[in-house]
Amino acid sequence: MAHGSRKKVSNIEIHQLAGKIASSSRSFDIVEACFLEIAAPSIPQGIASCIEQNVAEVIIMPYFLAAGRHVIEDIPTIVDKESFKYPDISIKSLPYFGSSPVIVDILRTLAENNT
Amino acid sequence: MAHGSRKKVSNIEIHQLAGKIASSSRSFDIVEACFLEIAAPSIPQGIASCIEQNVAEVIIMPYFLAAGRHVIEDIPTIVDKESFKYPDISIKSLPYFGSSPVIVDILRTLAENNT
Repeated sequence: MAHGSRKKVSNIEIHQLAGKIASSSRSFDIVEACFLEIAAPSIPQGIASCIEQNVAEVIIMPYFLAAGRHVIEDIPTIVDKESFKYPDISIKSLPYFGSSPVIVDILRTLAENNT
Repeated sequence: MAHGSRKKVSNIEIHQLAGKIASSSRSFDIVEACFLEIAAPSIPQGIASCIEQNVAEVIIMPYFLAAGRHVIEDIPTIVDKESFKYPDISIKSLPYFGSSPVIVDILRTLAENNT
């Protein structure tokens, strides 16, 4: 789940990323992109799409770098509301991407390899 | 270089990330955070700070996930302007973080490990 951009190419990039994760993962039956705002599908639409495909569990990965208002307030509010809508489905939001401790090493390596 | 947030804690997170990269890197003399908007230091201020510390080269890592307007238009415009201001210093902007091919593996691994 990404923020969503007015630039179509940016949203396509997120869909392509979801596609690459789907094709390289054995753990997940379905991998789909959705967006907090501006672009479609929305978070509720993304969750509904998975549930229509008969999943028992929906796992949301917030593809955000820092704990701004969206991560702290907006996303939990939306996910809570959707969880309430589907009491028989486990809907879980993971820690946002930027909170991962691996980021430090990746950034350093990217900077070192590009210079 | 990150976007900058109205949430102070989010900007502090970026400064801490720069600090962690600084303390784990042998390749860079100085690692500092700067922000496209909202938060300080700005990109021009971040570049000026490095140059005041006598560097010959400034490398900017755009800490952005997708190629939206900021990545495509705003950042190159600012970096070009600053490069023009300091003709004796090499000022280089790396590809934005989200364009790295390692992202697919990291996202998949994070999702798999958290479920």
